[in-house]
Amino acid sequence: MSSRETVDFIYEAHERIKPFVHKTPVYTNTTFNNLIGKEAFFKCENLQKTGSFKARGALNTVAYSSGNHGLATAWASRLAGVKCSVVVPKTTSEFKVTAVQGYGAEVVKCEYDPISRLEACETIATKEGYEIIHTSDHDDVIHGQGTIALELLQEVPDLDAILVSASGGGMISGIAIAAKAINKNIKIFMVEPKGKMAEESLRSGKRLWPNPPQFIDTIAEGLMSQQLGNLTFPIICRLVEKEVFTVGNEDIINGMVFSFRYMKMVIEAAAGATVAAAMSEKLKQMDPGIKKIGVILCGGNIDILKLPWYSSTY
Amino acid sequence: MSSRETVDFIYEAHERIKPFVHKTPVYTNTTFNNLIGKEAFFKCENLQKTGSFKARGALNTVAYSSGNHGLATAWASRLAGVKCSVVVPKTTSEFKVTAVQGYGAEVVKCEYDPISRLEACETIATKEGYEIIHTSDHDDVIHGQGTIALELLQEVPDLDAILVSASGGGMISGIAIAAKAINKNIKIFMVEPKGKMAEESLRSGKRLWPNPPQFIDTIAEGLMSQQLGNLTFPIICRLVEKEVFTVGNEDIINGMVFSFRYMKMVIEAAAGATVAAAMSEKLKQMDPGIKKIGVILCGGNIDILKLPWYSSTY
Repeated sequence: MSSRETVDFIYEAHERIKPFVHKTPVYTNTTFNNLIGKEAFFKCENLQKTGSFKARGALNTVAYSSGNHGLATAWASRLAGVKCSVVVPKTTSEFKVTAVQGYGAEVVKCEYDPISRLEACETIATKEGYEIIHTSDHDDVIHGQGTIALELLQEVPDLDAILVSASGGGMISGIAIAAKAINKNIKIFMVEPKGKMAEESLRSGKRLWPNPPQFIDTIAEGLMSQQLGNLTFPIICRLVEKEVFTVGNEDIINGMVFSFRYMKMVIEAAAGATVAAAMSEKLKQMDPGIKKIGVILCGGNIDILKLPWYSSTY
Repeated sequence: MSSRETVDFIYEAHERIKPFVHKTPVYTNTTFNNLIGKEAFFKCENLQKTGSFKARGALNTVAYSSGNHGLATAWASRLAGVKCSVVVPKTTSEFKVTAVQGYGAEVVKCEYDPISRLEACETIATKEGYEIIHTSDHDDVIHGQGTIALELLQEVPDLDAILVSASGGGMISGIAIAAKAINKNIKIFMVEPKGKMAEESLRSGKRLWPNPPQFIDTIAEGLMSQQLGNLTFPIICRLVEKEVFTVGNEDIINGMVFSFRYMKMVIEAAAGATVAAAMSEKLKQMDPGIKKIGVILCGGNIDILKLPWYSSTY
């Protein structure tokens, strides 16, 4: 266990970022609770600055370096007064690209694969003398995201479990570090899109993913990395449950539709995934001692002119 | 002025309904403020029980009578344990019909005009021995809706103006009674769909609408009545500004899109209308003393599988 994997860093991150980010509300929904037969507490990071939890980690990082991870880093860089380039796959929705540019950052497009992304980052970093800030595999980012759990448990201290979706795993690592330090009995469950195959790796403690790293074919832009990070994987193996909630595109859409329709919350697909997991038969049939569940609505950055349930593909 | 047009009844209504309805949050949005050059405070009644402010008036009424006005009355009736039939025009979205039935109320469909609606109500009321509760032209309903202003001004006491959309005028009457009693200098502005032609009537103090009463051709289901009520019209003439904000379907859609995209809030067209008014040139060019504006997001009951910006009609 790295010396930086303690909740103290997360409390410090919280002090640092608190003046600039929202303490997002925690919502409950009677219809949802009746449906799942448990009590769900939705942490609304879709209402966070820049429309996602990423603002937390980005701001905690950029506080002392220039950086690169999307909208949140662009926003944080503007706050910190530093220059910023953001590398995105060319499939990224124009809506997000425009938002990044709106914060004054440069957008560079790359192919839809992790290698191409890394190469583009390195080229710019060398040319401009920038530091590369990984979207999740970075201590400061992890600590920033962990502040979500501090706020959620402050509001609902007796949660039995938290459902968190994972791409690189920065958010779930930070949440697990913070939540387990506050209540060692709380269970942290990972929600993944089909094709991530995280459960095998979690159970064996070994990185069983094929190389080179690839992106998953999912409607959840925020969950496209197949592999967990080198820094996040061991944290997750130690603190997160081995049972993973795997959701397909249809499940994700159902989760989003529920949220739009009954909670009046615009959420992106990565958040729809956690709602779907909370609605799943798998959760219903789990340990009946799991009654109060935190559900992280990680973001709301979706192109509302191209909602997935209007597309003929799904 | 009727003896019941005082804020005292609204404070009493608040005490009565408070345990059952949400104290909805008031949101601000930096992007929006930059856009309009003023500070806007969004009162999120889309997050209210039943998805709209109507829960307030319905509950205040049904506390001592059975009733009829849509989803909120169905919900309030179930809470109060009384039977309830809801008459809706046959154009009402299936989503709303299903929701009403979900609360155990009977749904009766009528033609899309106010006369047909009244006749259907009277037939059922006679047959079943029910009382007819008007959607807006009823003291208890007006007092219930007025509680929105109590909460909003408690949170933001120094508002210069409030923008409220009107159909029958129950919500704007209640809000005007409460807000003007708390701060006599506050300005209450009506937002109307094209075709309502309220400004002429407000300026003359006379009901200049054509008879028989008719519904307007608008995408805002919640704003279909052309005429203000017999009870609400004199209140509005006395307390509401004569300058009316008139918005077309395109403006309404722009307001909704802004809310979905940047505020991550699902709102219905009647709320999109107030957002559109807040974004309008008319507001920008008004008295520069109007700096802090309350914007009532009256509801979020929209069929998200049929959002208006996906329809070829608009």
